[in-house]
Amino acid sequence: MARPKPLSGFPEFLPAGRMVETAVLDILRETFELHGYANIETRAVETMETLTRKGEITKEVYVVRRLHADPATPEKDDLGLHFDLTVPFARYVLENAGHLAFPFRRYQVQKVWRGERPQEGRYREFLQADIDVVGQDQLPEHFDVEAPVVMLEALERMHAELGLPQALMHVNNRKLAEGFYRGLGIGQEGGAFEQVSTLDVLQRVDKFDKIGGPAVAELLTGELELSQEVAEQCVALAGICTPDDSFVEQVRSLGVEHEMLDEGLELLRRVVLAANKRVPGRIVADLKIARGLDYYTGTVYETELVGHEKLGSISSGGRYDSLASDGKTTFPGVGISLGVTRLLGPLITKKQIEASRSVPSAVLVAVDDEQSRDVAEEVAAALRARRIPCEVAPKADKFGKQIKHADRRGIPFVWFGGLTGQVKDIRSGEQADAQASSWELPEADRRPTITTNLG
Amino acid sequence: MARPKPLSGFPEFLPAGRMVETAVLDILRETFELHGYANIETRAVETMETLTRKGEITKEVYVVRRLHADPATPEKDDLGLHFDLTVPFARYVLENAGHLAFPFRRYQVQKVWRGERPQEGRYREFLQADIDVVGQDQLPEHFDVEAPVVMLEALERMHAELGLPQALMHVNNRKLAEGFYRGLGIGQEGGAFEQVSTLDVLQRVDKFDKIGGPAVAELLTGELELSQEVAEQCVALAGICTPDDSFVEQVRSLGVEHEMLDEGLELLRRVVLAANKRVPGRIVADLKIARGLDYYTGTVYETELVGHEKLGSISSGGRYDSLASDGKTTFPGVGISLGVTRLLGPLITKKQIEASRSVPSAVLVAVDDEQSRDVAEEVAAALRARRIPCEVAPKADKFGKQIKHADRRGIPFVWFGGLTGQVKDIRSGEQADAQASSWELPEADRRPTITTNLG
Repeated sequence: MARPKPLSGFPEFLPAGRMVETAVLDILRETFELHGYANIETRAVETMETLTRKGEITKEVYVVRRLHADPATPEKDDLGLHFDLTVPFARYVLENAGHLAFPFRRYQVQKVWRGERPQEGRYREFLQADIDVVGQDQLPEHFDVEAPVVMLEALERMHAELGLPQALMHVNNRKLAEGFYRGLGIGQEGGAFEQVSTLDVLQRVDKFDKIGGPAVAELLTGELELSQEVAEQCVALAGICTPDDSFVEQVRSLGVEHEMLDEGLELLRRVVLAANKRVPGRIVADLKIARGLDYYTGTVYETELVGHEKLGSISSGGRYDSLASDGKTTFPGVGISLGVTRLLGPLITKKQIEASRSVPSAVLVAVDDEQSRDVAEEVAAALRARRIPCEVAPKADKFGKQIKHADRRGIPFVWFGGLTGQVKDIRSGEQADAQASSWELPEADRRPTITTNLG
Repeated sequence: MARPKPLSGFPEFLPAGRMVETAVLDILRETFELHGYANIETRAVETMETLTRKGEITKEVYVVRRLHADPATPEKDDLGLHFDLTVPFARYVLENAGHLAFPFRRYQVQKVWRGERPQEGRYREFLQADIDVVGQDQLPEHFDVEAPVVMLEALERMHAELGLPQALMHVNNRKLAEGFYRGLGIGQEGGAFEQVSTLDVLQRVDKFDKIGGPAVAELLTGELELSQEVAEQCVALAGICTPDDSFVEQVRSLGVEHEMLDEGLELLRRVVLAANKRVPGRIVADLKIARGLDYYTGTVYETELVGHEKLGSISSGGRYDSLASDGKTTFPGVGISLGVTRLLGPLITKKQIEASRSVPSAVLVAVDDEQSRDVAEEVAAALRARRIPCEVAPKADKFGKQIKHADRRGIPFVWFGGLTGQVKDIRSGEQADAQASSWELPEADRRPTITTNLG
């Protein structure tokens, strides 16, 4: 077999890279569970019927078929790989509704697949971590406040403990925008622009970041035939971005009034205040965020990494009034998804974030000669009994070579002799007497440490 | 959307079931890492070329294609889902050999897929946990001793900590059998049965468990035309099964001699003694184990659960002299795979193993009224700061209803009042004053506990 080449779009990490990913996943798990989110996994495949319900994304689906299925006649039960974790979760909720306790908080960390043509920078397999809360028939609005706090706490720990860049979450509320537009008479019975849909306005405002405010105003007056004044009001709203609740006053000063606007303002205010209380300085009310024009109905979230904005949003989500429905019961939800591979892939590949070693072992137990391998195994067992990861040298080489073995893997300590022996910190060269039954390593050395070099 | 039905062969668990699985995965991870095994993940797909190298398993492969690929012309770069973790690992080793430090210990816990027709009791997606050590050009035999010790330590912890059934690993060495057959003149130049291949004998001996010793002897004399005496010797060897190294004497007493037999006996003796030392009573030398007739070349392992033998082998593996080769370099390895879904699926489904709660929360913080939700959030934040998982009640219902909310999810404690409040153990009904900044829960309640009822 010739040396295989990587498959474009299917990232894989070396062991040290995987350790970085694992450190991130550990933080996610701990944070989510501290907030009461239960973990689930769903199967990798869904029926094509489930996957294609939302029409437009079918082009990105990978179809899965038995090798010996008849290629000419697609099987009725053809399956596809899931392209996100929301569609499978919605299906899981419907399938298991009778066995779940609502409101149901879940987190899910799994690979997802997009059946794209190979293309530079496009992932075809990547890891996502989703949190969602789903209710039966109704879901109180305070969950819109909870979800961003949970995700921001996790991101803040990654920053504080692993040195990842700071996150900044941009939040908006679609009711705020829609209420504002209605207050301007857009899509409002008897309003000046009754025929224009608020969604059409939102779609154009969504281009604010790309084309700028004046160009958006032109689209609104040109394509939608809004008046110059109303278009400018819409653009002014989209331009509001505050790190606290001062956006409320700024919106009020635009002089538009509508019940739905009040509702949106109040909820967004609560989200921003609560997040600032728990994770200060990591959220902004950003009134140009529209976020996926399909199923979000309230709060919407996007998150960028400060200094790495070109990565795009690494964590997004929102409120959807109908995550799933079986006709009788509707399941509203609110959730945020973190693109783990999108966040870490480039940093790991460019070695901007690294683990201090490529193995879990904190200690290499040296072997005097093959006859005394059992002694080394005894030492290792004694260390493991106290949760110290270690490995025994594979060969009774000269000690210098065994130390090199440790050094090459980043293992900080080498043990010489038996249960009563000596331990050498190969970073400092210090060597001291030690008992395998009682020697303790510095807590920071128990696991690989993660360091960043963000340039 | 009508209520979806499960897909046969694609098991999914409810949150409490997933908690059982997670508890098992935590033990695996900790055990493997204490022994210096580094985690990796490989992509879900391999090229069809990689997957079909071993011919006979192609019928079980799931092919993966973009939805809009031309159905008539299979694409040159068609992909398939991996059906085990060994083939992807071999490919990963070849692809990354220049970046790996050998001998390389890795563990890998991922789903695998088998493209079978739906069939009762057959998994089409299931979780495996593999450990392997791979060397460059050579791999010392003491790794044959290490691998079963590591897997047995993990299985023993599952037994001791989670109440899973005891494991019993059956070990053999193919050199032992082959040396024995050669000593009898089978497949041996100048021997009495020079024309008979030792593999042919092994294939028939492999049926020992199913058809019994006498029937195996008949196959050997009938199909392979061995003498009655030699056939009986082969059957006698296969019948040897000892929990210690007394098998050596039993084999010796059969009076067969061969260098390769000596080698196999010695290595098997070391494996059995070492495993018995670290995990007493969980291994037997079982000389009828043949295990996958394709690539194993030395030690072979199979593991059954005591009292649940009909599950088959839940953990199997062995030594392979060539896990991978690029023509110049050969990578020998030894590894053992644990079928996590095979082990847990039936137990979880039949509720023979359960988690004490369906959420991670140890505490439900009750809410007096919606105006004081912030106070409850403060309490929750204080508890989380000390790593106590908790959730705030979704609604300011009557306290009885809030307690029911906790009870339904198995949450043991309910917190009433503010930072200085009261905490009720809803199992005992005891209620006491508590400070959110200092209250400690019993350590056993921090995480869900796992209980078994194996009937």
